[in-house]
Amino acid sequence: MQRIANLIAIKDDQILLLQKPRRGWYVAPGGKMESGESIYEAAVREFKEETNVTPINAHLKGVYTMIIKENNEVVDEWMLYTFVAKDIEGIPFKETREGKLAWHPAEDLKHLPMAEGDRTNLQFAISQSGIQYGTFEYTTDFELLHERIQISIEQ
Amino acid sequence: MQRIANLIAIKDDQILLLQKPRRGWYVAPGGKMESGESIYEAAVREFKEETNVTPINAHLKGVYTMIIKENNEVVDEWMLYTFVAKDIEGIPFKETREGKLAWHPAEDLKHLPMAEGDRTNLQFAISQSGIQYGTFEYTTDFELLHERIQISIEQ
Repeated sequence: MQRIANLIAIKDDQILLLQKPRRGWYVAPGGKMESGESIYEAAVREFKEETNVTPINAHLKGVYTMIIKENNEVVDEWMLYTFVAKDIEGIPFKETREGKLAWHPAEDLKHLPMAEGDRTNLQFAISQSGIQYGTFEYTTDFELLHERIQISIEQ
Repeated sequence: MQRIANLIAIKDDQILLLQKPRRGWYVAPGGKMESGESIYEAAVREFKEETNVTPINAHLKGVYTMIIKENNEVVDEWMLYTFVAKDIEGIPFKETREGKLAWHPAEDLKHLPMAEGDRTNLQFAISQSGIQYGTFEYTTDFELLHERIQISIEQ
């Protein structure tokens, strides 16, 4: 089962997003965990590789079970770990083979084109306390079919 | 890849642990996630099934990459999600086919027989703020070979 870690950096109310070439959708930089990595190590490594930027005090904000369904059957399932960092070191690349990197006003998360689950998760990561959990079911074309969300806050 | 969610309940400085029959080692109640479950749903469901107790305000305290090595090769790898709950509802079973359930003073975590990684993780879960991440490498006989730990706290 695939494990994906991503990270959203927010500084001065600006967020660093990657625009992927295929659909033009925006994502938080990240990628696949390697064998033996912790989710923290994977999120920091992938973010650095994709952006040239080091996240400071990365913190986990969400753990999601991602499901792809086709003809009502689960055809893929993976785990997504979403981190936030409120400080960074370094100047981001402008463009890589992964896509175009740029700072955007945080409020643009409401309308930029992206997977609808990502919109939910990234808004939570930058604006709410605690940890979010959930399951997102998508079609093979990444249309959101169904979501279930839970949130907890440290007591 | 297997995904395991467990939960440690702590109330009045007592923790609810399950003593497994084979080795006599103590664990936090938990078990395997099912397809499509979130880690939160899995932790709460497994805890209820194994203990007869409902955890209140369960909160994620650790995400761990677990590795089993034999002859220096990775022979198994899975993810462990550890939750804490500081309140519960219900009276725990005394014994199930999973083992013996009982409340123990929290300080007994220091010396009760258990996997050494579990000792580290459960102590963190009941006593420290933030989230712990890490990788634990074990032999096939559950002798701890190596650990790497990271911790982050919400900013």
